[in-house]
Amino acid sequence: MCGVFGVFGHAEAANLAYLGLHALQHRGQESAGIATSDGKQLSLYRGMGHVIDVFANPQIKRLAGTSAIGHVRYSTAGGSFLKNAQPLAVDYSEGSLAIAHNGNLTNAEQLRTMLEERGSIFQSASDTEVIVHLVAISKQTTIEDRVADALNQVDGAYSVTLLSQDKLIAARDPHGIRPLVLGRLDDAYVVSSEPTSFDLIGAKLEREIAPGEMIVIDKDGMRSSYPFGTKPRKMCIFEYVYFSRPDSVLDGVSVYEARKNLGRALARENKVEADIVVPVPDSGVPATIGYAEEAGIPFEMLLVRSHYVGRTFIEPQQSIRHFGVRLKLNPVGTSLRGKRVVVVDDSIVRGTTSRKIVKMLRDAGASEVHMRIASAPTSWPCYYGIDTPTRSELIASNHTVEEINKYITSDSLSYLPLEQMASCVSKAKVEEFDPEDGKTHLPVQNEALDKDSFCHACFSGDYPVRFEKQRGPRQMRLLDI
Amino acid sequence: MCGVFGVFGHAEAANLAYLGLHALQHRGQESAGIATSDGKQLSLYRGMGHVIDVFANPQIKRLAGTSAIGHVRYSTAGGSFLKNAQPLAVDYSEGSLAIAHNGNLTNAEQLRTMLEERGSIFQSASDTEVIVHLVAISKQTTIEDRVADALNQVDGAYSVTLLSQDKLIAARDPHGIRPLVLGRLDDAYVVSSEPTSFDLIGAKLEREIAPGEMIVIDKDGMRSSYPFGTKPRKMCIFEYVYFSRPDSVLDGVSVYEARKNLGRALARENKVEADIVVPVPDSGVPATIGYAEEAGIPFEMLLVRSHYVGRTFIEPQQSIRHFGVRLKLNPVGTSLRGKRVVVVDDSIVRGTTSRKIVKMLRDAGASEVHMRIASAPTSWPCYYGIDTPTRSELIASNHTVEEINKYITSDSLSYLPLEQMASCVSKAKVEEFDPEDGKTHLPVQNEALDKDSFCHACFSGDYPVRFEKQRGPRQMRLLDI
Amino acid sequence: MCGVFGVFGHAEAANLAYLGLHALQHRGQESAGIATSDGKQLSLYRGMGHVIDVFANPQIKRLAGTSAIGHVRYSTAGGSFLKNAQPLAVDYSEGSLAIAHNGNLTNAEQLRTMLEERGSIFQSASDTEVIVHLVAISKQTTIEDRVADALNQVDGAYSVTLLSQDKLIAARDPHGIRPLVLGRLDDAYVVSSEPTSFDLIGAKLEREIAPGEMIVIDKDGMRSSYPFGTKPRKMCIFEYVYFSRPDSVLDGVSVYEARKNLGRALARENKVEADIVVPVPDSGVPATIGYAEEAGIPFEMLLVRSHYVGRTFIEPQQSIRHFGVRLKLNPVGTSLRGKRVVVVDDSIVRGTTSRKIVKMLRDAGASEVHMRIASAPTSWPCYYGIDTPTRSELIASNHTVEEINKYITSDSLSYLPLEQMASCVSKAKVEEFDPEDGKTHLPVQNEALDKDSFCHACFSGDYPVRFEKQRGPRQMRLLDI
Amino acid sequence: MCGVFGVFGHAEAANLAYLGLHALQHRGQESAGIATSDGKQLSLYRGMGHVIDVFANPQIKRLAGTSAIGHVRYSTAGGSFLKNAQPLAVDYSEGSLAIAHNGNLTNAEQLRTMLEERGSIFQSASDTEVIVHLVAISKQTTIEDRVADALNQVDGAYSVTLLSQDKLIAARDPHGIRPLVLGRLDDAYVVSSEPTSFDLIGAKLEREIAPGEMIVIDKDGMRSSYPFGTKPRKMCIFEYVYFSRPDSVLDGVSVYEARKNLGRALARENKVEADIVVPVPDSGVPATIGYAEEAGIPFEMLLVRSHYVGRTFIEPQQSIRHFGVRLKLNPVGTSLRGKRVVVVDDSIVRGTTSRKIVKMLRDAGASEVHMRIASAPTSWPCYYGIDTPTRSELIASNHTVEEINKYITSDSLSYLPLEQMASCVSKAKVEEFDPEDGKTHLPVQNEALDKDSFCHACFSGDYPVRFEKQRGPRQMRLLDI
Repeated sequence: MCGVFGVFGHAEAANLAYLGLHALQHRGQESAGIATSDGKQLSLYRGMGHVIDVFANPQIKRLAGTSAIGHVRYSTAGGSFLKNAQPLAVDYSEGSLAIAHNGNLTNAEQLRTMLEERGSIFQSASDTEVIVHLVAISKQTTIEDRVADALNQVDGAYSVTLLSQDKLIAARDPHGIRPLVLGRLDDAYVVSSEPTSFDLIGAKLEREIAPGEMIVIDKDGMRSSYPFGTKPRKMCIFEYVYFSRPDSVLDGVSVYEARKNLGRALARENKVEADIVVPVPDSGVPATIGYAEEAGIPFEMLLVRSHYVGRTFIEPQQSIRHFGVRLKLNPVGTSLRGKRVVVVDDSIVRGTTSRKIVKMLRDAGASEVHMRIASAPTSWPCYYGIDTPTRSELIASNHTVEEINKYITSDSLSYLPLEQMASCVSKAKVEEFDPEDGKTHLPVQNEALDKDSFCHACFSGDYPVRFEKQRGPRQMRLLDI
Repeated sequence: MCGVFGVFGHAEAANLAYLGLHALQHRGQESAGIATSDGKQLSLYRGMGHVIDVFANPQIKRLAGTSAIGHVRYSTAGGSFLKNAQPLAVDYSEGSLAIAHNGNLTNAEQLRTMLEERGSIFQSASDTEVIVHLVAISKQTTIEDRVADALNQVDGAYSVTLLSQDKLIAARDPHGIRPLVLGRLDDAYVVSSEPTSFDLIGAKLEREIAPGEMIVIDKDGMRSSYPFGTKPRKMCIFEYVYFSRPDSVLDGVSVYEARKNLGRALARENKVEADIVVPVPDSGVPATIGYAEEAGIPFEMLLVRSHYVGRTFIEPQQSIRHFGVRLKLNPVGTSLRGKRVVVVDDSIVRGTTSRKIVKMLRDAGASEVHMRIASAPTSWPCYYGIDTPTRSELIASNHTVEEINKYITSDSLSYLPLEQMASCVSKAKVEEFDPEDGKTHLPVQNEALDKDSFCHACFSGDYPVRFEKQRGPRQMRLLDI
Repeated sequence: MCGVFGVFGHAEAANLAYLGLHALQHRGQESAGIATSDGKQLSLYRGMGHVIDVFANPQIKRLAGTSAIGHVRYSTAGGSFLKNAQPLAVDYSEGSLAIAHNGNLTNAEQLRTMLEERGSIFQSASDTEVIVHLVAISKQTTIEDRVADALNQVDGAYSVTLLSQDKLIAARDPHGIRPLVLGRLDDAYVVSSEPTSFDLIGAKLEREIAPGEMIVIDKDGMRSSYPFGTKPRKMCIFEYVYFSRPDSVLDGVSVYEARKNLGRALARENKVEADIVVPVPDSGVPATIGYAEEAGIPFEMLLVRSHYVGRTFIEPQQSIRHFGVRLKLNPVGTSLRGKRVVVVDDSIVRGTTSRKIVKMLRDAGASEVHMRIASAPTSWPCYYGIDTPTRSELIASNHTVEEINKYITSDSLSYLPLEQMASCVSKAKVEEFDPEDGKTHLPVQNEALDKDSFCHACFSGDYPVRFEKQRGPRQMRLLDI
Repeated sequence: MCGVFGVFGHAEAANLAYLGLHALQHRGQESAGIATSDGKQLSLYRGMGHVIDVFANPQIKRLAGTSAIGHVRYSTAGGSFLKNAQPLAVDYSEGSLAIAHNGNLTNAEQLRTMLEERGSIFQSASDTEVIVHLVAISKQTTIEDRVADALNQVDGAYSVTLLSQDKLIAARDPHGIRPLVLGRLDDAYVVSSEPTSFDLIGAKLEREIAPGEMIVIDKDGMRSSYPFGTKPRKMCIFEYVYFSRPDSVLDGVSVYEARKNLGRALARENKVEADIVVPVPDSGVPATIGYAEEAGIPFEMLLVRSHYVGRTFIEPQQSIRHFGVRLKLNPVGTSLRGKRVVVVDDSIVRGTTSRKIVKMLRDAGASEVHMRIASAPTSWPCYYGIDTPTRSELIASNHTVEEINKYITSDSLSYLPLEQMASCVSKAKVEEFDPEDGKTHLPVQNEALDKDSFCHACFSGDYPVRFEKQRGPRQMRLLDI
């Protein structure tokens, strides 16, 4: 998972990108970077870590220009190297080009082999480098035609921003798997993975960038085209369940309301007598509110999350390790004692965290613990940009719900059927509101959103884009240390 | 505000202190430190920043020994220097001594003048150094008598842990203004500002350390005494409102339940017609749950907090600054639209944050915004260890509630009377539960808790301990850079 | 200027490269890097700064394998970015390839344009990236043929080491402008810019790698070929005057003895009555010893060099700046007083440093100051890998010796004619000595070394390889910050 | 060993201190610090490492005021902690006081015990803290009387600078064991361990601060007094042999000329037939020049020193370690081959370095290696501020010259008798020269300098100040990590 941002035509382009990335920080904490253009030359700065730390460096004042793109990158399991940080920026025959990419290409390996065979060299393990090569070798003349040409050759999920000396390009794959939205800040255009970053900079959400749409912004304004053909909309349904911020509206759907709907449906799905319903914070909170409302069971915030846990936690000695979840979550013991507890989480991956949570609640005195999951069983890995475990590691891929219930030691466990998930998300469509005239407008995305409108491969194994086994970072021949 | 921790008699003393401080991180993010003893020599390591960053240094493996004390220090407004980090550790006539201190001495300036006049030198701006000097010049012979002698001379608030080569001492001022609790981990003793740190390390809360009590732990076990005389219990009531973690039980009172009670009382106090009630996260959440329950208005989590905001935020240019609260909070616009909103916060200090929150909610489309504060108006500065603004900066010290309501632009504003606060906290007393035998026991603190049992000086101006104008860090003659 | 190193077939390959680079540190202090191969995968680590600081990182223990190449990079005037650090390592169709390059290609701009036109992308400002692209697009099948093919297309100066998964390749341009030597350490082969790095690791100098020679080392041993055609030897004469360490033997010539010869010739060239002769340390010392011996004037070390001066010197206020040379050199005043001083330096670039030295000596009490330069006037920029000022900045390019003498305020100034320089260097040929059998052998390089054997373009403007105006780092369109 | 600096009455006080410390860097590389006064408040900044790195921090711009003291600290064998860095600065009854100390107190342990018994606490292992306590408890009223009172109680070696809000005090122990000089920069006064720092800032050496002299500088000018009584001058003779920079004049003696005289005497002392004489750089160079001149044997610079070696050198694997001296020195092999070599060093401590140098020269082809030491055998540890090994580690303390010669494998070895050393140093007295009027003046120090004028305890065991076994840093009970 990653986040991308872009701005064109603002005197504070680098600062806006910095703030925009800040609001996308939840989409990636491994690295951050910004590329700007002053019309003649691109400038680039990238670093490992959180946006706030990377850009503490006073050098970023040298990020000159009125257009910028930015990127935050998710911490993946393998190695994490500055080399893989984005934006990636290169010189090629027509000038300089920077790119920030959210998603994953399913034919990167084949394209890479093809490109290497024609003489291209690769300096990173990132599939994003493939796109840049394809732009560079395109027979097209304009940068927009070259980008269209390149993206036409790649399969998979991509929401990308590209920056040349004088143009900002934003594009979304034909299935629209990853989100990408367009906004305005005075005369400037902004694009972002999520509209929450517009709130922070005071920009106004215009609309989503449609699946298959390519936006080109330059001094003459904005142009839209659909050069990648038409395919069924397949927005990642898990963006609504977990990835995106609750204050985002994606494809016309409120993430917060979608989650509440998921909670409500969950309450109807498998009723249980209980005294309280408790969320696994932070992502489980809206679903729990919906659950509590629907079930008429009091909502209580009895798992407290520590927000100071980072990644460099030193390994304690044998006798005191295995604090796992404890370091992030702690129960409010006195309020749990003797209570029948429903606990709501967004998903179960390996089952180990859920098992710890159940144990933690029981140790704190809960008399019953019923686990409710605001999504269907996660049974299949994602090949479109999310770092999930392999199929064999996903507990739901080879265990029944009852087996999982037994493993995590809960009194009962239930998930939400996929059809219901889709229905819950669809019902969370919002009417757009213009605070200036006080009127409501049509929703941003006005097509019907049924189950087929989403990519739900992680739940169903029904992959909208064919993928082939990728070589991936770990099979790369060159290792940065 | 600060947090202190101590452990005696455990092979993993330094690691336990590290984890314990981690759970106290919310009490101070400026610096962290641990001192250990191996019976012959004390070892000390301190650094600026969060616990996790300070102790990323592999050198801490050299923190040898089976006893330890630790400290986290709050970021104060003035300067922040390593020199002021704690524990403070010194050599003196009887050996080495380390001290970690939560609180503030009200006669530090007079004692410092007296000590300087007799020839003492000061190397920090901290009033903690005064205590160490008093221990060093005491005519008493044992370390516990010296410490008792020293603490008998200081006024104000203190919850301290001290470590000599072979003893751990913990003491709490006679009013018991700051919390301090005692626990057991197998054969080892642990002390901490809050019991939540015991949960993390698997220790069991034994009881509070009583106001005026001094605990001495050595190889012969634990001894308790009350060498500082008896004074009325004056536990800081704001610990329940804001400082402590909701999963802590302090003086027999559940912080979480106390906050819910405050919210319930607030709902009864000044009723208002509204569609939803929204907390200012994170501290306002339990009170909002209580409010929603009592008022029968739906609870919604419509202000989203960013947990990635740190302290080194670069200053954006003139045209895009003043994002203030926005960087930490963002509204879920689509769910607020057209709604009559009650927003619950724990307190109002200067009023500027509340004003921004009201504006943010209105901009997001709320039709009415009613601010409810789960405490009385904060009108007086704290002299007992909390870094509050001066009286002139506290909006409630020189404005009526109606004036504040006007300033923050809310449709209505109400606070909770002090008497009600005390009553809410008192009602949150818990019966202790032993998971091993499944029985409930008497509460930790079994005295009645009326208004007079608390220090509420910040609300009432009724200071339990006389204070004199302190020279304070900024008037110190020596400045570290 | 840069330094390169390589080792093949040693269990401690990375450590040997580290030590080897250490001994080449004088050839570049901006960045350092090492690439290793374990037969299947290359590993790479690079960083900004001195070898000792870059490799303080414990991660380098992960530089696995029995072959390695390394690089130190000179601090150039423009920007200094990690991106430009070497070795450069890439994946391409045949596997992975790392390269370390000392020199400068004179047709890099044309090749880059050609490569970009065929679709190549560039991620650095370095001309080394050109070589890698040429290897990648070569129609040849073996790595050695591809490298030969690539190097056949480049003009200019290059001494390179390349590492594939299973081969180490070292090559030197047909003119042999930059040095490159071959050695043995037990069964392992080593290559280096200078033999002084062999001393440090206990390796034995075998011979120079000849101009135009390409060495391929793999599990089957070493093979030599001359795939780039034959051209006149044009070893950089300034390597003897300044760049190389005095303990190096390059092309069969002792740098130390060459410098002494230059000093001797200088003493004969323009005799002056003087009391003492003083070197500008450190490079001027051997020439001064030669001068003192020939002229019969006592050698004195009266300019003391500070070895603690780094690059991050903070800018003092207006009133105390301009300490320039003072920070590096300080005179032994009491010993200079009333003395007629000959001061020997290796070259004059802009004249500002010489002017400061003359003033410093006079201020210290010298009655006369005669500047003697152990080379001809530096009048032309170098296009073969040394970062020299432009022609207009070189004082000798537009001033007579008398004008320079006046500018630097010396009592007299003389240089050494180019013919004499060549003769001095030639006379410093050494007979090789085998400490094992105690016998002397033929010198490493046994051709005659007259003036035409050297590149002396910086003195004569007689450039052995045609160059074209390069775009260079500052004209690159993409700027790293 | 350490270096101290002070300036009073200059608008650029902090910058001058920074530059002054830079020129004293050879006296200590472990830590550096500066304290300034603006007349009301002292400011302090200290850090670990070289001056240039410590003061790269832009915070030093906050070192306000027109007076300053500074300190560089030598890397001692034990631990190195920021806490031990100087200046040490404290608040006490009369205001603030900062102190920078070069030397070592021989009765620090007794004073510390006395001070602890009266109730003082110690926060460092440094004996300098003792001085500050004595100032603080003094019954005297003025700061100068308090300092005089304090220093009257300490024994041993000290050259100190102290800074109060409005006064700069500099004092030197009655024996004058460590150097301290006074200079002028326009209207400002400067003091320093060595006059070489005056050269750098353009200040003029006025005179040495005499043994037992205390200088007080304030707005009314400078006052001199001798409050510590009169004792025989005992300037450390090893300052001339090794510690001080060759461009310094200490007590009227040119260090450079003293070293040349030592070399000359060495040449007369034990004549040997040889082809060349080679210094161990850098400290051995002037003595070697003197030796070469006296013996009529050519001076050659055939051991090349690497100036890039720092302290964080990573440990290479077993098979390639033990490069020891090699990393710092490398021989010019081709010029040593077959030569009879005299090698001149300043001293032999353990013998291991000399043994490596002899082996290195032989391996390089030298036919004979004669070691000449420009001082007497180092047989006794220093208790006056230099970190020397214990007596048992000093090879000369328990071996004859012949045994040492055998151990280091030289063909012959000779030292210089102590009487000759004293005579050589005495003969290097200089006449002062005023570049403004061109006249020579009386030397700074005009007493006779015979053997008894020096502290030569490290050679003779004849300690001028009685010392008692110190507790020292390692016996301190409190350990910083």
